[in-house]
Amino acid sequence: MRMSTLFARTLRDAPADAEASSHKLLVRAAMVRQLMSGIYTFLPLGLRVLRRIERIIREEMDASGVQELRMPIVLPVEPWRETGRLEAYGELMFKLRDRHERELALGPTQEEIVTPLVASELGSYRDLPINLYQIEWKYRDEYRPRYGLLRAREFLMKDAYSFDRDEEGLRASYDTMVEAYDRVFRRCALDFRVAEADPGTIGGDVNHEFLALTDAGEDEFLYCENGDYAADVEAATSKRPPPAGSGDLEPVQEISTPGRSSIQAVCELLERPANELLKTMLYDASGTSVAVLVPGDAEVNEEKVARAMWPSTVRPFTEEDFSTRGFVKGFVGPQGLPGDVTIIADHAIAARRNWVAGANRTGFHASGVNEGRDFRVERWEDVVRVSEGMACPECGGRLRLARATVVGHTYQLGTRYSVPLKGTFVDEDGTEQPYVMGSYGIGLPRVMAAVAEQYSDEAGLKWPKALAPFAAVIVITNRDDERAVAEAERIYAELTDRGVETVLDDREASAGVKFADADLIGYPVQIVVGKRGVAAGTVDLKLRATGERSESPLAEASEAAARLLEKAP
Amino acid sequence: MRMSTLFARTLRDAPADAEASSHKLLVRAAMVRQLMSGIYTFLPLGLRVLRRIERIIREEMDASGVQELRMPIVLPVEPWRETGRLEAYGELMFKLRDRHERELALGPTQEEIVTPLVASELGSYRDLPINLYQIEWKYRDEYRPRYGLLRAREFLMKDAYSFDRDEEGLRASYDTMVEAYDRVFRRCALDFRVAEADPGTIGGDVNHEFLALTDAGEDEFLYCENGDYAADVEAATSKRPPPAGSGDLEPVQEISTPGRSSIQAVCELLERPANELLKTMLYDASGTSVAVLVPGDAEVNEEKVARAMWPSTVRPFTEEDFSTRGFVKGFVGPQGLPGDVTIIADHAIAARRNWVAGANRTGFHASGVNEGRDFRVERWEDVVRVSEGMACPECGGRLRLARATVVGHTYQLGTRYSVPLKGTFVDEDGTEQPYVMGSYGIGLPRVMAAVAEQYSDEAGLKWPKALAPFAAVIVITNRDDERAVAEAERIYAELTDRGVETVLDDREASAGVKFADADLIGYPVQIVVGKRGVAAGTVDLKLRATGERSESPLAEASEAAARLLEKAP
Repeated sequence: MRMSTLFARTLRDAPADAEASSHKLLVRAAMVRQLMSGIYTFLPLGLRVLRRIERIIREEMDASGVQELRMPIVLPVEPWRETGRLEAYGELMFKLRDRHERELALGPTQEEIVTPLVASELGSYRDLPINLYQIEWKYRDEYRPRYGLLRAREFLMKDAYSFDRDEEGLRASYDTMVEAYDRVFRRCALDFRVAEADPGTIGGDVNHEFLALTDAGEDEFLYCENGDYAADVEAATSKRPPPAGSGDLEPVQEISTPGRSSIQAVCELLERPANELLKTMLYDASGTSVAVLVPGDAEVNEEKVARAMWPSTVRPFTEEDFSTRGFVKGFVGPQGLPGDVTIIADHAIAARRNWVAGANRTGFHASGVNEGRDFRVERWEDVVRVSEGMACPECGGRLRLARATVVGHTYQLGTRYSVPLKGTFVDEDGTEQPYVMGSYGIGLPRVMAAVAEQYSDEAGLKWPKALAPFAAVIVITNRDDERAVAEAERIYAELTDRGVETVLDDREASAGVKFADADLIGYPVQIVVGKRGVAAGTVDLKLRATGERSESPLAEASEAAARLLEKAP
Repeated sequence: MRMSTLFARTLRDAPADAEASSHKLLVRAAMVRQLMSGIYTFLPLGLRVLRRIERIIREEMDASGVQELRMPIVLPVEPWRETGRLEAYGELMFKLRDRHERELALGPTQEEIVTPLVASELGSYRDLPINLYQIEWKYRDEYRPRYGLLRAREFLMKDAYSFDRDEEGLRASYDTMVEAYDRVFRRCALDFRVAEADPGTIGGDVNHEFLALTDAGEDEFLYCENGDYAADVEAATSKRPPPAGSGDLEPVQEISTPGRSSIQAVCELLERPANELLKTMLYDASGTSVAVLVPGDAEVNEEKVARAMWPSTVRPFTEEDFSTRGFVKGFVGPQGLPGDVTIIADHAIAARRNWVAGANRTGFHASGVNEGRDFRVERWEDVVRVSEGMACPECGGRLRLARATVVGHTYQLGTRYSVPLKGTFVDEDGTEQPYVMGSYGIGLPRVMAAVAEQYSDEAGLKWPKALAPFAAVIVITNRDDERAVAEAERIYAELTDRGVETVLDDREASAGVKFADADLIGYPVQIVVGKRGVAAGTVDLKLRATGERSESPLAEASEAAARLLEKAP
């Protein structure tokens, strides 16, 4: 491709509203342009990157026995009503009406479409397992689209759906997909982790996120310094401390703590560490009061509480709840709560005796509060928000917090969709059974943005060769020098013959502009053909990834460039 | 691919509402499934065909210097308002609102998006010409979607847009695209014609349709038996007859024709042929009355009248128009019409003298009516609907009528979009000029359906090898015969090694079912591995296109199948 004709005008400045470095660079390097909030045009260079990601995914899906189909983008809303997701997604789904006033939606994912399709095509256990995928644009009407391609309203997604007879089959299908995802992200040269995750609106039980490590990522996750555990902050758990066992129980004693309604203030007054205090948080779960108990140095993870109380809807107590239901805000303790309050305690509460808790009286706390004697726990759950420094649930090692971008997500859905959508098959014993399903997504523009975050510097992008729009650029520093132009053309023809996709920067522009664009666009290999070099019989080469420069005899330039490309990541 | 795992359940019966044979076969052969009216899922077999068409188009576009990008599907409506197409498309455009109540639309084509994009990226004549394309799903909310993939509401389209400095540049870009289209449709093995066409809502001047000849096509077109002319019925023109020259002009005489208000009735009464009668049709063009004159044996082509009167909106006179404006319905003639009536005559009116026309008096016609003496023509235009048997405008040969499916359409748009959208560049002389644009579309599912129409019989599809989902099928007639199964597996492995994409029909089904499916799905080559053949050391081969059967030694089966494939269309 000749740069003089390529539709790729680079920009010196990033858009004023760009926050993520990937967004700034992808716009500046003429990869994408915003058409409107959260909706992007992919220019030729950006589309080439996207297509390379698409090809890698397609190859790995095909190699894993997943079959490609293509479902529509414009969908009927009825099946979404049946699964409850029309309501769960709410305004996040783009909805429209056709000329006959039929309600339609733009697909955010397609469980509701693929399940009835499979049900109408396959009826017997003999037809299972089956795993289907597509690579198609998806739609979510984000309230505030941001970070460029990371939180867009229109985005290309690979979505796959597996259908099995039973849980065992699902686990096998799931493992196959997790392995395929591992290969996909490795081939994309991403630095990533697989983490246990919260299922969100998709539902189901076991699920994992594939997280690309990026400083500017939207998501936080925890990982063990020993490498045996990772989970996003919503799902992370920590090693359960051993129970305290029996021992001396102090008597309950009221302590005056006037005006000390925060954990920190009580700690200071009593000169006791926060982990000796018991924190009691109150929630409303579809009308009933729920007290959640965690150690004073921990935070409640409300996603975990919501999952524990599902299908009730959970929200924190309001000021009004405290007053109308008779709780003393800032001084609540689990002892002597009304009988209709559900008490959920984190496992850590069992690891200590003689807690300091609120005394359920303004200005007072109580010491010597003990589970069993002074209060009863109805449910022991993991409800703590895990934070940096806590113990790994696998090995007890130290957990670390990092930022990341979710590039893939896999779900063991079970029968979450097949039951409401009546997706059933006749099993070997003649009974009708719901499919046991899995669902598997990869956000292609997110992969592109995450790679851009990981492979870039202040000068621009540094594409790994598997995704680079072109592998090499030949810069002609001076178009007036006929010999340099002729040599550049020869090298261009040779590289093209070798199958190295190359851009020839033949523009009437200064060498400085061309060097800056080469760095910005991020071709793995740069070949500079200049007047002085040609006179001396050499060209200059640069490996963009490392900045390493070298020289090659003019006659061997294409050979040298191809060798250098092999060294590129 | 093993048929036992392929997601492809064939159907014995076509959907009840399927009209076109392509629709019936594509559904029966498990290529597509309707999700709702005019919206289809492409199953794995159908998607493979679609992707092959896509690859052919991409290769030919890339080879023609057209650059691929990808514009969004969800679009802002504002630029559509500026070009007037929001109104022109009306309900044909799917419209929606986002959560912030912004008006959006699903793109039917993308002139309104690509023009501002190019304008914001390229500013100088030096950047031109540029030609950009994408292959993406498009949306039209057809009032009555029908014929399966032929008139769908969601369809995959290759749309390209060229930007030139001037008309000469446009013509060069246009010719390049027409040649590329010719190669695309040849590679798809389509029997097609290039025809002059009506521009419809796109606008612009010169434009051509690429018509696949199909009995069930939605469109009619005329072509010369000598092969030098083709045009759709809206745009077709015929050889202009020589003017009558001067000669004896008979006097105007009133003839009593009571109750004879039709051409046929007058012809019968007067015993004169229809081509001696002058037909006067009345239209309203944005408030003014227009009389259109054509010979009695011809029909008015209202699209041509509309183009002649553009930008006025043209509609036929209503009963009310006749009475309020004082015209005698059934007896109108051009002589003595009020001065505010615009008279448009077809060129054929100049080819004859002494017309019989209505006398503008109920129950009377007039003979000896002559242009110039008895009435004046304000505009000579081509306004006749050309029909079979008329003379070719190129050579005078006989025109024939045929049915077809439009698979591609190319437009010389000129400045139709660049002017309202302010798509301008700075020309060499420093003046700001609007781009001179072209636009070029191919409907991929239409190509698929047209090929299915052209390559099929009562048993099923007969894909040309360039588009076939798989090149060959190996039918194991009896899975219980271990030797036959082993030989089939060997042939399958050999064909796969040769790069021949093959399906192994290893299902537990009768040989009859497998043969029927092989014919229905339409693999170019069938290889039958049966017990008796294997015992005799042979396999049976069938070329689906011709039904030609042959036998091959078992050991040479893959070689023989590959040779047979070369003979396939």
